[in-house]
Amino acid sequence: MDRTWSVYLSGEIHSDWRERIETGTREAGLPAEFSAPVTDHAASDEAGTGTLGEESTPFWRDHMGAGVNAIRTQTLIRAADVVVVRFGDKYRQWNAAFDAGYAAALGKPIVTLHDPDLDHALKEVDRAAMAVADRPEQVVEILRYAITK
Amino acid sequence: MDRTWSVYLSGEIHSDWRERIETGTREAGLPAEFSAPVTDHAASDEAGTGTLGEESTPFWRDHMGAGVNAIRTQTLIRAADVVVVRFGDKYRQWNAAFDAGYAAALGKPIVTLHDPDLDHALKEVDRAAMAVADRPEQVVEILRYAITK
Amino acid sequence: MDRTWSVYLSGEIHSDWRERIETGTREAGLPAEFSAPVTDHAASDEAGTGTLGEESTPFWRDHMGAGVNAIRTQTLIRAADVVVVRFGDKYRQWNAAFDAGYAAALGKPIVTLHDPDLDHALKEVDRAAMAVADRPEQVVEILRYAITK
Amino acid sequence: MDRTWSVYLSGEIHSDWRERIETGTREAGLPAEFSAPVTDHAASDEAGTGTLGEESTPFWRDHMGAGVNAIRTQTLIRAADVVVVRFGDKYRQWNAAFDAGYAAALGKPIVTLHDPDLDHALKEVDRAAMAVADRPEQVVEILRYAITK
Amino acid sequence: MDRTWSVYLSGEIHSDWRERIETGTREAGLPAEFSAPVTDHAASDEAGTGTLGEESTPFWRDHMGAGVNAIRTQTLIRAADVVVVRFGDKYRQWNAAFDAGYAAALGKPIVTLHDPDLDHALKEVDRAAMAVADRPEQVVEILRYAITK
Amino acid sequence: MDRTWSVYLSGEIHSDWRERIETGTREAGLPAEFSAPVTDHAASDEAGTGTLGEESTPFWRDHMGAGVNAIRTQTLIRAADVVVVRFGDKYRQWNAAFDAGYAAALGKPIVTLHDPDLDHALKEVDRAAMAVADRPEQVVEILRYAITK
Amino acid sequence: MDRTWSVYLSGEIHSDWRERIETGTREAGLPAEFSAPVTDHAASDEAGTGTLGEESTPFWRDHMGAGVNAIRTQTLIRAADVVVVRFGDKYRQWNAAFDAGYAAALGKPIVTLHDPDLDHALKEVDRAAMAVADRPEQVVEILRYAITK
Amino acid sequence: MDRTWSVYLSGEIHSDWRERIETGTREAGLPAEFSAPVTDHAASDEAGTGTLGEESTPFWRDHMGAGVNAIRTQTLIRAADVVVVRFGDKYRQWNAAFDAGYAAALGKPIVTLHDPDLDHALKEVDRAAMAVADRPEQVVEILRYAITK
Repeated sequence: MDRTWSVYLSGEIHSDWRERIETGTREAGLPAEFSAPVTDHAASDEAGTGTLGEESTPFWRDHMGAGVNAIRTQTLIRAADVVVVRFGDKYRQWNAAFDAGYAAALGKPIVTLHDPDLDHALKEVDRAAMAVADRPEQVVEILRYAITK
Repeated sequence: MDRTWSVYLSGEIHSDWRERIETGTREAGLPAEFSAPVTDHAASDEAGTGTLGEESTPFWRDHMGAGVNAIRTQTLIRAADVVVVRFGDKYRQWNAAFDAGYAAALGKPIVTLHDPDLDHALKEVDRAAMAVADRPEQVVEILRYAITK
Repeated sequence: MDRTWSVYLSGEIHSDWRERIETGTREAGLPAEFSAPVTDHAASDEAGTGTLGEESTPFWRDHMGAGVNAIRTQTLIRAADVVVVRFGDKYRQWNAAFDAGYAAALGKPIVTLHDPDLDHALKEVDRAAMAVADRPEQVVEILRYAITK
Repeated sequence: MDRTWSVYLSGEIHSDWRERIETGTREAGLPAEFSAPVTDHAASDEAGTGTLGEESTPFWRDHMGAGVNAIRTQTLIRAADVVVVRFGDKYRQWNAAFDAGYAAALGKPIVTLHDPDLDHALKEVDRAAMAVADRPEQVVEILRYAITK
Repeated sequence: MDRTWSVYLSGEIHSDWRERIETGTREAGLPAEFSAPVTDHAASDEAGTGTLGEESTPFWRDHMGAGVNAIRTQTLIRAADVVVVRFGDKYRQWNAAFDAGYAAALGKPIVTLHDPDLDHALKEVDRAAMAVADRPEQVVEILRYAITK
Repeated sequence: MDRTWSVYLSGEIHSDWRERIETGTREAGLPAEFSAPVTDHAASDEAGTGTLGEESTPFWRDHMGAGVNAIRTQTLIRAADVVVVRFGDKYRQWNAAFDAGYAAALGKPIVTLHDPDLDHALKEVDRAAMAVADRPEQVVEILRYAITK
Repeated sequence: MDRTWSVYLSGEIHSDWRERIETGTREAGLPAEFSAPVTDHAASDEAGTGTLGEESTPFWRDHMGAGVNAIRTQTLIRAADVVVVRFGDKYRQWNAAFDAGYAAALGKPIVTLHDPDLDHALKEVDRAAMAVADRPEQVVEILRYAITK
Repeated sequence: MDRTWSVYLSGEIHSDWRERIETGTREAGLPAEFSAPVTDHAASDEAGTGTLGEESTPFWRDHMGAGVNAIRTQTLIRAADVVVVRFGDKYRQWNAAFDAGYAAALGKPIVTLHDPDLDHALKEVDRAAMAVADRPEQVVEILRYAITK
């Protein structure tokens, strides 16, 4: 079947894991297209004020920004065939875990990607996933298997 | 991802807000396509009699017209990624609020667009929205952020 | 079938229409129970500040209040068998139209209740309803028919 | 309406916030019943091995335990009217954020509960909530408002 | 399991098939409760005018009546575990076939009940059913089997 | 929006109503594509035996045929934006009413098409429709309005 | 929360595993109620002919019986909180695997129960389960954990 | 309608039934595209270890593999219009029956394909199907009928 798979790459924005997956997938010639949240941290934090205007209270500034971000992320997750969720060692990344829960309730297949030393802390999220990877190259292998083999 | 976003523009039909959003989006080069209810007020009021024939009782004439309009609006809202709902200062625009409720229950991201002096009256509708704008250009900025940044 | 029907009474909070429906239904001995939004206007406006604490910006004060109100209203609409939506001649009542749209998308049967001079303005909402009444006593008759006849 | 509300209390298991909400609700005479994950940390970690038997690999031991926990948590979240999610300052609590995402996709009203210094880190989760509280007593007030006022 | 089954009895209103099923079920001591459309033909035809008031145009009089009837029938079909649809030899009973299609799309198990000489005309409806009976007593046997054996 | 509308034409197979709608739509230059059940009566009756082989019992022959037909009709109805259902004066056409009920439960906009002398018999089906037409040309006008005006 | 859990026990009907789970659960004082398919093999095979009458062709006799059985099983699976699926060493038990797939698509938590020597053959079904047990007593422990701990 | 049908071919991987269906469909010029699980038995068994790395315990090795396989199969079943499920005489093929149950709960039309001597064992699965074939050529005929006739 001439099918292009849509893969949403959620989570950590401070390492090159997305590029490694996208490059590996392209090199493997797989019919996949990728989407992601805005990965420019500063731009993401200003999603609200940059579009709707100033807001002096930090809580509401974040609230506005998170709303604008959600237009993007929830639409792309709903449109995805597979959702990959990456957890790194910086920040708490609650939004990544939120995305995983959101995808799980929609019945989307999830792949988690994180170092093994996060295994215990992520056990509930991992349990909802179809695969738990610790390197981006494994995700490429999974996509290769799922899409073309 | 080569994705074209579908945006439904609900509500007020007596100002140029739709054109301003569509023009701004086109100038920004965003992959978005827009849909809307029939915005010719007279044509909309005659949606029933113009298609099905005369009806002498005003209530049923409206009923017929609203049915034909709903074929269009409910189909397009269901097919939309994002629903923008505009409230102006003329008329009660209950159909705009109805569309917002309909979109909310379907889990569609909503952006409302109205003057700040309607804030209190629209608080429930705004609460269901991911963003509250007061100028069409802000909606363009939101789409720019959500679609391409 | 020993079934108690759940009826949600949405909309106008400045006349006694809810009492007239509830009294009429009780006098008719119908197995129905009613729910509604908070109908004390001042309490409703303070739903956020009264529960979560002060907020100085009017927009966000409304936003907080509307969120707390929505916990109640969306839960009760989802739990309802029938949703009655009342439009009066004061205020714009966009939240009532929003509730109607929300109920329609969930497939709940809707009854609208309003004066005939609002017919044209409410034609889209009325079209989504199974019945359009102009007096609370008609709603009682509809419930009597739907529930027991 | 004689309705008992079901409230699921997700998240942190190392402080007395559940007791404070339950006590406050009972003292207020509200018709609410509460459910929660297993809050005994050791028991929760042994959910798999304590029911299914030994497993020597830590990853799979966690996997088994998370599966048994999910039988409980996903069933109770699906059955809940309202989901309260508590974030504390210990641990990463990704499961709490996962529960929030899961509840959001199901359309359940969410209340988050956390210290204001977590506001920025939790902005996406808070945006999906109908209310953001920082003390359990505020949650009681919200329930009082939503359920009986 | 102490479960009471809800059975909706759709279709023909001019013979005693409902009574025979209800009596047989009661005599068999089965935990089932039954619901049905209004079976008084005249009352059903006046469902609109009897509740909402006069309407001189026959089409709209029927339209009003059908709306009020649908409040009842769609609610009860949605609440049913099993839907029995009876076709007789009088009238066209398109509403019975409509109910069957409605129940099928909701995933409700359907039992049809009709004379064998209607088999060919009803083949599409029968195909959507889990059982095709020609006597009410067979429906009782099916309920006995499904509920208690 | 460059959108092609999918329209399913259910019901009567003994008059040229489908051709008239398709021709009128093409002449109007509307972006619509049409689908329908198999309209060759003999072929439809042999849908089972013609594909799966002989079956001597009439009931099961019909059952096999209706199953094969349903693969087509249910798939196309689920894929449709709008469902037009035609009732003629021959046969009972219960399958048309079944399709209407099926489409209604899926939230598809329905247009019915029949002579006014069937109004009373079809009142429940008509009530579930957004428009009731008596000539194919009216359906073309409705599509013209819904799709392009 | 005073909640009674509904547990559906699907699969093998030739050993006492249901009794062992039900007895263990009762002795543990757990608020659970159980449902199951008809477990009398002969009665199950005659579900069609015993209710609807004779049918001479084996295929259609099975078809009738399976329809009547499905009224029971699909209703009870839809009503269940948890679905336990037992695979034994006799027969192919495709209906048990079918039930598991059906429950999985509905988002019901599944527990599988079978000997370890079936692990490889059941790997896809086990993967869709939240827990894989090999003795009924483990299922009791899981229910004890999920329901009350 | 210029529609390409998506057909998922589930089940047995040790005979040439998929090729026969695909060849027959191509020769018939039907607009259908096919998808399937990975049909290389060894590759399928190594879906987990081949992508994620070694795992010494057989149960968990299968578990990993089944997860990776499910990413593919559940995505493709959800995207399919029609699901064909083949049962052969080797192995227990519980995953095929699982797929059938999964597809049934999603409302997908199912065609089963197996020798008549499996009729009794497969009666529940067959009952959920729209057609029961015993040769691949019959499936081609069904597709020809459903898609183009």
